[in-house]
Amino acid sequence: MTNVLVSTVPFASHDRLPLELLDSVGAHVTINPIGRRLQEEELAELIPAAEILIAGTEPITRKVLEAAPNLRLIARVGIGLDNVDLLAAQERGIQVTYTPEAPAPAVAELTVGLMVSLLRHTHTANALLHDGQWHRFMGRRIGESTIGVIGVGRIGSRVIRLLSSFGVRRFIANDLAPQIELLRGIEVEWVDQDQVLRGADIVTLHVPLTPETRNMVGRAQLDMMKQDAVLINTSRGGVVDEEALLRALQDGRLGSAAIDVFAHEPYEGPLIQEPRCLLTSHMGSMSIDCRSRMEAEATREAVRFLTGESNLCPVPEQEYLIQAEERG
Amino acid sequence: MTNVLVSTVPFASHDRLPLELLDSVGAHVTINPIGRRLQEEELAELIPAAEILIAGTEPITRKVLEAAPNLRLIARVGIGLDNVDLLAAQERGIQVTYTPEAPAPAVAELTVGLMVSLLRHTHTANALLHDGQWHRFMGRRIGESTIGVIGVGRIGSRVIRLLSSFGVRRFIANDLAPQIELLRGIEVEWVDQDQVLRGADIVTLHVPLTPETRNMVGRAQLDMMKQDAVLINTSRGGVVDEEALLRALQDGRLGSAAIDVFAHEPYEGPLIQEPRCLLTSHMGSMSIDCRSRMEAEATREAVRFLTGESNLCPVPEQEYLIQAEERG
Repeated sequence: MTNVLVSTVPFASHDRLPLELLDSVGAHVTINPIGRRLQEEELAELIPAAEILIAGTEPITRKVLEAAPNLRLIARVGIGLDNVDLLAAQERGIQVTYTPEAPAPAVAELTVGLMVSLLRHTHTANALLHDGQWHRFMGRRIGESTIGVIGVGRIGSRVIRLLSSFGVRRFIANDLAPQIELLRGIEVEWVDQDQVLRGADIVTLHVPLTPETRNMVGRAQLDMMKQDAVLINTSRGGVVDEEALLRALQDGRLGSAAIDVFAHEPYEGPLIQEPRCLLTSHMGSMSIDCRSRMEAEATREAVRFLTGESNLCPVPEQEYLIQAEERG
Repeated sequence: MTNVLVSTVPFASHDRLPLELLDSVGAHVTINPIGRRLQEEELAELIPAAEILIAGTEPITRKVLEAAPNLRLIARVGIGLDNVDLLAAQERGIQVTYTPEAPAPAVAELTVGLMVSLLRHTHTANALLHDGQWHRFMGRRIGESTIGVIGVGRIGSRVIRLLSSFGVRRFIANDLAPQIELLRGIEVEWVDQDQVLRGADIVTLHVPLTPETRNMVGRAQLDMMKQDAVLINTSRGGVVDEEALLRALQDGRLGSAAIDVFAHEPYEGPLIQEPRCLLTSHMGSMSIDCRSRMEAEATREAVRFLTGESNLCPVPEQEYLIQAEERG
């Protein structure tokens, strides 16, 4: 009987298919008993018996892997790999898979919704009205805005696609190797990152967390932005310097922001005090359909591994190179 | 010198063009000194000297018009006419104009934003996180939903157009005389109102307030809806029975709702206590561009009237007939 540890939460909460799949191959499944993102020590304590790890965004560090002598596969439920020490896994012959396509539709829709909320102050009006205060906020329209997209991969390109029906004035975007299949028929100006920051009314980030993108949006970048611009980060915590963002909002150097991802989660930092920052709890991929697809895809990798089939979506070599570069 | 009373608020707050236009024809302008929607008595007190009224949604009743012996033109900033006694105006030879096109883009975008907020619980996550509570809500996607639209005129058709890039599974809609120009290339199933209510995951209302639509969505209609459906009303207060909506939400017979318009505004009723009701303060048309366009168009009607030109957008005969029918 193979021991499978599921460290991601939630898991199979709306659709029991992943558990049924694991049952069908006679796996012995342990599900994260803490019910929230595990910390390094917690994961290290749970992992020793595991041969397969179905993982979320918890830290899968060298130290964790050292505590996992039996581990042969890490199946990430999701796309980001910044939490997995790929090189340490490779050294131990542990395969790593991920589900890069599945979260994109949910993240893209959330991003568009956050844009409207920020531009129209709906979350603020809602909070006030539930407190008995009627205030008619004047807002702005997506259709009248210049949209700036940094990172035009699976998610960024989809955001542009969703907004293509809004009559957007101008899309300005930056990416070294943009994913252009979804952009057919849409006019996008490709500019450098600073030009996106300077020119856009709405800046939305869709980059992975790498050495290049860590604190990519800090004080200097925030100062480039229009004073009434809005910033949205549904990509990865650590890409935006939270301290610099807080100061920019407090000093009125930025219109507002919507932040879904944080350097440390669950987030309990000072942005909580800033009403001009719309905060959500890393919910980008949290739609029933996308979450189900992510869980099913990751679980299928586990099942294929156990039945001797090759992985469908192994993490590409490039991701290992990025982490190798990071170490210098 | 012609006396112009501006009863709508806000007015010329982001763009002084309307005031400049009125200046250019030497009008004597009085702006609503109370700074919120006027009640009948308040308007009746302010109106006696006015020859032209630039109006919002305040009640322009027979009683108000009786207090306005000099009034010759009512220029509505906006589209709804339920607040204007058109027949009483007609009897007195008072012309009425409106700005039916201008608010549509802003209302449609807000509607889409409210859909995402409801489906993804962003307003709730935001409130919790600002209170120090991290909760990852599982949500649903527009692209996976059946969208039901009741009222497919200038705004409803635009909502469908905006959503056409979301890969929506199915649009079901009801309107006696839909505005189809914007729907080219989009597959919409035309069904009766009950079928929209029964079949949709998201029901959005875009009808005027008339005798037929008053309390159009009451207990019986809410009970037809799916138990996890969401309801959005950015059209007119009075179309949804607020009491019945509150009960449906409290009893768990409806997923959630977003309500921007109320039978009595400023709203201070019991929906304030219901966290599953996203509340905004009649902000549908409140984007700078649309509001500016509405104000400029209404003001231009005033200027044209004063310079002896014909109105560009008089209220059509049909609207008078609707009100005549209402009286029986």
